[in-house]
Amino acid sequence: MNAEDLIMISVDDHLVEPPHLFDGRLPAKFADRAPKVIRTSKGDDVWTYEGAVIPNIGLNAVAGRPREEYGIEPTAYEEMRPGCFDLAERIKDMNAGGMLGSMCFPSFPSFSGRVFGASEDKDLALAVLQAYNDWHIEEWCGGAPGRFIPMAITPLWDPELCAAEVRRVAAKGVHSITFTENPATLGFPSFHSPTWDPVWEAVCENDVVVSIHLGSSGQLAVTAPDAPIDVMITLQPMNICQAAADLLWSRVFKTFPDIKFALSEGGIGWIPYFLDRLDRTYDMHHLWTGQDFGDRMPSDVFREHFLTCFIADPIGVKLRHDIGMDNIAWEADYPHSDSSWPNAPEELAAVMAGVPDDEVNKISYENACRWYDFDPFAHRTKEQSTVGALRAEAAGHDVSEKAYDQGRYQRRKGIDIGELAKRATA
Amino acid sequence: MNAEDLIMISVDDHLVEPPHLFDGRLPAKFADRAPKVIRTSKGDDVWTYEGAVIPNIGLNAVAGRPREEYGIEPTAYEEMRPGCFDLAERIKDMNAGGMLGSMCFPSFPSFSGRVFGASEDKDLALAVLQAYNDWHIEEWCGGAPGRFIPMAITPLWDPELCAAEVRRVAAKGVHSITFTENPATLGFPSFHSPTWDPVWEAVCENDVVVSIHLGSSGQLAVTAPDAPIDVMITLQPMNICQAAADLLWSRVFKTFPDIKFALSEGGIGWIPYFLDRLDRTYDMHHLWTGQDFGDRMPSDVFREHFLTCFIADPIGVKLRHDIGMDNIAWEADYPHSDSSWPNAPEELAAVMAGVPDDEVNKISYENACRWYDFDPFAHRTKEQSTVGALRAEAAGHDVSEKAYDQGRYQRRKGIDIGELAKRATA
Repeated sequence: MNAEDLIMISVDDHLVEPPHLFDGRLPAKFADRAPKVIRTSKGDDVWTYEGAVIPNIGLNAVAGRPREEYGIEPTAYEEMRPGCFDLAERIKDMNAGGMLGSMCFPSFPSFSGRVFGASEDKDLALAVLQAYNDWHIEEWCGGAPGRFIPMAITPLWDPELCAAEVRRVAAKGVHSITFTENPATLGFPSFHSPTWDPVWEAVCENDVVVSIHLGSSGQLAVTAPDAPIDVMITLQPMNICQAAADLLWSRVFKTFPDIKFALSEGGIGWIPYFLDRLDRTYDMHHLWTGQDFGDRMPSDVFREHFLTCFIADPIGVKLRHDIGMDNIAWEADYPHSDSSWPNAPEELAAVMAGVPDDEVNKISYENACRWYDFDPFAHRTKEQSTVGALRAEAAGHDVSEKAYDQGRYQRRKGIDIGELAKRATA
Repeated sequence: MNAEDLIMISVDDHLVEPPHLFDGRLPAKFADRAPKVIRTSKGDDVWTYEGAVIPNIGLNAVAGRPREEYGIEPTAYEEMRPGCFDLAERIKDMNAGGMLGSMCFPSFPSFSGRVFGASEDKDLALAVLQAYNDWHIEEWCGGAPGRFIPMAITPLWDPELCAAEVRRVAAKGVHSITFTENPATLGFPSFHSPTWDPVWEAVCENDVVVSIHLGSSGQLAVTAPDAPIDVMITLQPMNICQAAADLLWSRVFKTFPDIKFALSEGGIGWIPYFLDRLDRTYDMHHLWTGQDFGDRMPSDVFREHFLTCFIADPIGVKLRHDIGMDNIAWEADYPHSDSSWPNAPEELAAVMAGVPDDEVNKISYENACRWYDFDPFAHRTKEQSTVGALRAEAAGHDVSEKAYDQGRYQRRKGIDIGELAKRATA
C-alpha cells in the first residue's frame, strides 16, 4: 500500500503535560498542593509535587529535532515542538505525520502514574490523579473528537480505589488504563497475588485494556553503571518480555479469561521466538510445575490476551502470521526519540511492502480500533482519514526544525551549530 | 536431512563433577582444603568448599528422567544417569543420542567458576581452579579424544591471572573459556572497563572463544519472589541479549577486532529482531551518543564477533539467513531439563526440514568446529561420525528410565509412582 493511502492509528504516543493542566481541577483545599511547573536556575522547566522535582527529559520530547541534538538533559517548553504539549499543535503535527488516531501515555507522572502516589496524603494523591484523568479525557481527547484513544492512570496504592477509578473513567468512555509492567518492583504485591483481583474484575466488566508500557516497572534494563546509554536504548523494548512471561504464567488469565493487556513499545520481532519458548517450557515442564491450560498451548493463551505493537520492525512484519494478525498494532512514539515523525507513513509503507492490503489495515488501524473500542469514523469518513487526506489538511504546517526555539537549546547545551552543519554536509 | 545422517556437535552441555575430581591434583599443602563431596542427612550429595555448601540441582541432571520427576531439589549421584558424571557412560549416552562432539560447562563451580574465587586464600583458589581445568582437559576430554571441545575456567578475581590461565590452557589445546555474561553483577569491573584488556589480549593471541552461558551473571531473570518457576525458565535464554548489547556497544570489539564470544544457551529466534534493534538504535542515536563503527552497522559487528546456538528453535531456523549462516551452532544441553536426549537428532531433523544439506551441516557441526578450532575427524571418519553410526556403536546401551536409581529418588521426594503411572496412561 502507498504511504498516502494508509490509515494510521498509533497505540503508543506521549504527551508532555502543559503547565495549566491542574488549573481549576482540584478541590480548593488541595489547590495549593497541585503539581506545578517551575523554571530552574539552569533554564529547565520541571514539575514539582510534594517536594519532588521531576524534569521533562529531553530525549522524550525530541520530535523534529536533528539527531545530533538528542540528549537526556532536562528541557524547557519553548525548546520542544509545541505539539508535545499543545493540543491544537499536536493535531497539526498528527495531520502532517498522517496520523489519524493516537493513544498518549503520561510523562511526568511516570507511565504508571506512580508519582502521584508518592504523597503521604492519599486524599491529595487521588484528587490529583483524578484531575489528571479528567483533563486527559475532557480537554486533551475531548478537544479533538475521534483523534485520541483516551487512557487513564489508576491509583496503584489501593486496588479497590484502582477498580473504582477504572469504573469512573469507563463511564466517560475510557477503554485503556496505563498500568505497570511489574507491580512487585514498585513495592506492591506482584501479578501473582490476588490483591489485584478487584482491578481485573473492573477492567473485564468494562472492556478496558490494561496497557503496560516499557519502563513502567521502575527498572530500566541497565547492565552496569558505566554502560553507554546505547545499551539501555537497545534493550528496553524487548525487556517487556518479562511482563509478558510473568502474566502468562500467573493466575490472572486463568481467573479472568476476558482480560486484555497491551505490551506498549515492546516491538514484535522477538515474539514468535518467545511463543515457541513458552510452548517448549510448557511441554517440558508443566508436569512438575503444575501449569495447566487445558487443551490450549501458552501461545494460544498469549494471542487471546495480548496486543503487541511496533514502530518499524521488518522481522516482525515478516513473521506477522507467527505472531497473530489480530494481535499487532502500529505505534508512532511521538515525540520520543524512537519516532520517525513526520515520515512514519513512508517508513511503515516500506516495512509493509508486499503485505496484502487487508493485513496492512489490521496492523495500521483496525486492530487498534477493535482492541480499544475506538471509532474514529464516527467523526470523519475513511476517505478523510488517510495519510494523504490528513496531510492535505496540514498544508502549510511547519514540520522543519525551525518550529521551536532550537537556538536557545543549542546555546544552553553548548551545542556547536557550525560543527553540526559541517557534519550534516560532510 | 534424515536424523540418522546428521553429524551433531553440541556447543553447550554440562558435566556433573565426580567426587574424585581433585584427587591427587592439588599440592600437598592444599589437599585437605580441596572441594569435597559429602552426603547430607537428607541423602543429597553436595560439594563443600571453604565453608560453602553447593548442591547438585536436580533440574540440572534430569537426562532420561520422566518429566513428572523434574524438580529443583538437590540430588544424589545414584539418582542421576551415570552419564552426567562418568566419562565412559557419557560417551555411551552421547553415542545413543547420536552426538559426535560436546562442550561441557562446569556445574558446582558455577558457569563462570566464581565459586573457586570465593576463598580468601587466592593461592588455594588458583590451585583448585587449575586442578579443575587440568582434570577437565586431561581426564574428561583427554579420555575420549575427538569427542569433547575442551573448555577452561578462569580466575575472574585477577585479570592478569586470567590471562595467564588462558595462555596455560591454550598451550594444552584449549580454545574456549567459560566467562560471565556480566562481570559487573558479580562485583567486578564491567565489560566497559579496560581492566579486562589482559584477558582479551590473551584470548585473541590464542584463538580462544569467550563462551558466556545464560545465568553466568549471577542474576537470574526473576520478576517477583512469588513468580512461578515457569517465568524464569521461559525468560532465561533470551536474557542473554543483555550481555550481547553490553558487549556490542562496549569498547571491547573496537579495541580487539579479532575477539570472539559465544552466547551459550541463548537461543536464536530473537536475534534478527535484536539486530534490527541494534541498527535502528545506531541510526537514531549514534550522532549524540558518539558510537562509531565506521562503514559497518552494528549487525555486521555482531556477526563478526558472536556465535549463537539453539536446541530446537523453529523460528530461528526459519530466520537463519537473517542471523548469519556462519553464526549458528546446535546445542544439546545434556543433561539439563531443556535437553531432548536421546531424541535430539529426530528433533533437530524435524526443525531443519527443508533446509539444504550444506546449511544443515554448518549448523549441526561445521560452525562449531571452525569457531572452536575443533577437529573430530582426526580421530574418526565422517562416515563413522553420523548419528546412525554412533547409535550403532551404542547398541544395547540402556537409555530407559531404569538406568539409574529412580526408585530411591521417588521415595526420597515423595513422588507417588502409582499416580504417575495413572497420568502416563490417562
